[in-house]
Amino acid sequence: MAKTSKVPEATIKRLSIYMRVLKDLEKRGTEVVSSADLAEICNINPAQIRKDLTYFGEFGVRGVGYYVKELHFDIRKVLGLNQRRNVVLIGVGNLGKALLCYRNFSEHGYEFVAAFDSDASKIGEKTPCGIIVRDIKDLPAVAKEFSVDIAIITTSAQGAQEAATAAAAAGVRGILNFAPVHLSVPKEMKVKKVDLTTEFDNLAYHLQPG
Amino acid sequence: MAKTSKVPEATIKRLSIYMRVLKDLEKRGTEVVSSADLAEICNINPAQIRKDLTYFGEFGVRGVGYYVKELHFDIRKVLGLNQRRNVVLIGVGNLGKALLCYRNFSEHGYEFVAAFDSDASKIGEKTPCGIIVRDIKDLPAVAKEFSVDIAIITTSAQGAQEAATAAAAAGVRGILNFAPVHLSVPKEMKVKKVDLTTEFDNLAYHLQPG
Repeated sequence: MAKTSKVPEATIKRLSIYMRVLKDLEKRGTEVVSSADLAEICNINPAQIRKDLTYFGEFGVRGVGYYVKELHFDIRKVLGLNQRRNVVLIGVGNLGKALLCYRNFSEHGYEFVAAFDSDASKIGEKTPCGIIVRDIKDLPAVAKEFSVDIAIITTSAQGAQEAATAAAAAGVRGILNFAPVHLSVPKEMKVKKVDLTTEFDNLAYHLQPG
Repeated sequence: MAKTSKVPEATIKRLSIYMRVLKDLEKRGTEVVSSADLAEICNINPAQIRKDLTYFGEFGVRGVGYYVKELHFDIRKVLGLNQRRNVVLIGVGNLGKALLCYRNFSEHGYEFVAAFDSDASKIGEKTPCGIIVRDIKDLPAVAKEFSVDIAIITTSAQGAQEAATAAAAAGVRGILNFAPVHLSVPKEMKVKKVDLTTEFDNLAYHLQPG
């Protein structure tokens, strides 16, 4: 069950989908799910699911399917989700406020410990979810105190590199970047860029006349 | 180049990534990109890219690579992006306001024609990007006038089904759902659920000790 470096990115993304579906099934009390049913709920073909799970030595039980609780636990472990992670947000505009209040994050083990901005007029402001906006200068101290793993960057395009540099200097290891720019960071740091237009494109494809 | 129903979802998502990278390359004046370079920029293995592109009869030129402008155009066509699409947003909270101002949408051919809410205290309010919040009751008239294709739902979990039902009744064909609930819609309607925690999970995986 150890992390191997050979697992493709696309598999990691699908594991995240399987995990959500299995969580729902577990909540509803389902004990076993057939590979065909799991495939249908996930909208992914059964062969792909089987292939993805073999990366982690999970093969299901022939003629039965997968044990929901067990598989859910194993996937969470593979994804490194059996621990809570402390998160900070940099750039408290509308998107920043929305993410700070996004309850799903906390349900999945991500905890916002602070929000930062470099705009003096915003510092001290209380966001809709009760988090006080702090000066970006306080980031190193906060990152150290709470062992912050991840910074979410929701600044403007102009402010994003400065935010990333500050996060790197403060010892943060991962960035989720919502700003529409490429960030330069030390090579040991992980950056995920989130582009919401990708979701639109997928929908647009399916709206084309067959 | 016609849409075929056999193209896997994961391929469509990757096409969207290739398209963005090609757009950047085209902007910078790059005429040709080797399959290896394209793979590295996209962080996807070259064999996967070649396989994805063969679905559309695109094979590149041996020893040369891909013609950037041509491939960009072809992928846009495959994805149905060579036309502008009118979009409405339902639920003008922080996330809604952030999305209304997200410039990337407009650059990719998605145009917000209106924003709706069912909260009387919000109706008539001007959002940060200048769009006036309208009563959800006006949705059918707006959808008809502007031939609206897509509704973005950024209501609370409680309000999402009502919003989806209103969109379906108004003849909207696709929904991008940011609310953390499953929506019931007529079967000819397409729904894409956006769960931002998926991005976190992917980052968390990569933050695990190797």
